[in-house]
Formats: sequence, C-alpha cells, structure tokens
Amino acid sequence: MSRSPGRKTENHKISRELFILTYGALVAQLCKDYEKDEDVNACLDRMGYSIGIRLIDDFLARSAVKRCRSYSETADIIAQVAFKMYLGITPSVSCSSAAGNEFSLILDKNPLVDFVEELPAERASLCYCNLLCGVIRGALEMVHLAAEVTFLQDRLKGDAVTEIGITFLRKPEDRKHKR
Amino acid sequence: MSRSPGRKTENHKISRELFILTYGALVAQLCKDYEKDEDVNACLDRMGYSIGIRLIDDFLARSAVKRCRSYSETADIIAQVAFKMYLGITPSVSCSSAAGNEFSLILDKNPLVDFVEELPAERASLCYCNLLCGVIRGALEMVHLAAEVTFLQDRLKGDAVTEIGITFLRKPEDRKHKR
Repeated sequence: MSRSPGRKTENHKISRELFILTYGALVAQLCKDYEKDEDVNACLDRMGYSIGIRLIDDFLARSAVKRCRSYSETADIIAQVAFKMYLGITPSVSCSSAAGNEFSLILDKNPLVDFVEELPAERASLCYCNLLCGVIRGALEMVHLAAEVTFLQDRLKGDAVTEIGITFLRKPEDRKHKR
Repeated sequence: MSRSPGRKTENHKISRELFILTYGALVAQLCKDYEKDEDVNACLDRMGYSIGIRLIDDFLARSAVKRCRSYSETADIIAQVAFKMYLGITPSVSCSSAAGNEFSLILDKNPLVDFVEELPAERASLCYCNLLCGVIRGALEMVHLAAEVTFLQDRLKGDAVTEIGITFLRKPEDRKHKR
C-alpha cells in the first residue's frame, strides 16, 4: 500500500453514486464471465475477502475501535461503525442462536442496489451484493475471528428485508478445550 | 432506476476506501479476462461510458449546474464540481489548443490509485483509471457534447503528473456551417 503520511487528515468521503454504478459494472462483468450464478457469487465473495483483509487496517485506524469482548459486541461494531463508515447505513442487529454466535444484520435500505430494479429472470440465484459478505469475512479473519457470512434474505429477490447472516465459528482450541 | 422520492435528502457520502478497493477488484478481473492491455482499457472505457450516461442525471440534479456557454466553462465544471463531488479532488485545468476545444485536467493526486504501488511489468500499457475517461465521455454525450477523453500522462507509469485530455469534437452542423 502506498499511503502517504498525511492521508488521515484528508477528506475520505466520496459520492456514493459512482461507487454503486462501478459495483454494478463489476457484477455485470462477472455475469458475462460466468454462466452459473453460484460462480458469480463465489467470485464476488473471493473479491470481497481480498478487499476485507486490506480494508481492516483502514477501519481500525479510523474507527479507533479496540478489541471486542464478545461476538455480540463485534456484530454491533460491524453494523454501527463499519457499515456506517463505508456505506452510510446502520443495519439493525439481532442474535439468532442460543449459542450466541449467530447474528443477523437487517438492512432496511441497501445503497448498493439503488440503481437496480430487479434481477433478470435468468439470474434468479445471483447474490448481487455478495461482495459485502466476503468483505466482512476477510476483515474478521484479520482480527482472528473465523466466520461464515451469507445473505439470508434479499429484497432484490422479493424478500421483505435484506438480511446478512454472520456465524462466528468456534476456534479449534475452543473446541478442544470443551471436549 | 429505482430512485425513491426522498433520496435527495439522504447522506450521499461514503468512505472512499471501499470504492477504491472495489475498483481495483474490477480492474484485476478484467486483467484476468483480457490478455491485451488495449482490450482492458477499451472495456474500462465502455463501462465508464455506461456509468457516465446514468451518472449525469445525478450530477445535474445535485450540482444545479446550468447549461455551459463554452468548452472552457464545461471543462472547469468537470474539474471543480464533478471531480470534487464524485472523487473528492479538484484537478487543475489548462487549455491546450489554440482552437479552444482541447483541455487537460491535471490530477496532482489520484485517489483511485491509493492502494496501487505500480503496474506489473507485463501490464505496462494498462490505463488503470480508464473508467474515468469513459464516465466523462458518457456524461458529456448526454448533454450533447461529443468528446474524446484519454489519459495523456499517468503517475502510475512514471509520469510526473496524471493528466486527462478532453478534446471536444465539433458538431457536424458546426463543420457544415464553416464550409
């Protein structure tokens, strides 16, 4: 990375329309490249992962967030700080497992699909915003948190809300400890 | 487009790091797809064009810019209003032809390459930011201004500055009138 020392004082904000349309161009290109929706989804996830493992430095530097003490706190930080910082929205968070390691981020609005009316019929299985899942997964991995991140609901597919599921995976040593 | 009526009052700003990294993923994907740099450049230009013809509505609505009276004024608006709005930078503008239809936008800083150190040796002819040329070309076409837009210099290629050249093309009726 080629960060200049004075970078933190700069204006980090840009208009999101250019981003949204560029993201749309990326998804369209992948739809040209891959026939199967699953392959497009996997590619978006991989790309997002690569982005997440780089974005985490920027996030930690600018948010001044310290180590989280629980999965619940981590999920809140993702929703209230990270989503706010990078996409200008704040999803609501709910815990969806008794074990306390599964969370849902509910997006009432999803700016990434602002210019998308609906998915084409032949792309019914496309997870249009799957890049976000990869970003979250990659960023979490860099702070030593393994997680599965997937879209559980998507307004683009006719669901009432858009819901991203985050399942924190127990570390191997946790499991060993429990046995 | 699925714009909601209340959209103008929203926060249109997002953090640019996510955009920059997503753009990088797009260029990397095109480099996988196309062997020749020229093909990647052409594809980025086409994508940018598609973005520009959609972005112009957003720009006109939010900037409240009225009809420009000269090519010079148009170039200034692109640099001072559009670049500022969408990328958070303000290139300097110079006119580079006696005919008054060729302009250069000089970018001291180019946020799009913030995370790029240098181009790989095998990608020496890549115009990494060529999407921007397409965006400008597409947006101008929607306000009935035909233009050629290309990178004339690029710091990524070792040039002292990054320079985008805009050549406004005479309209057919102008030419006819002059004969």
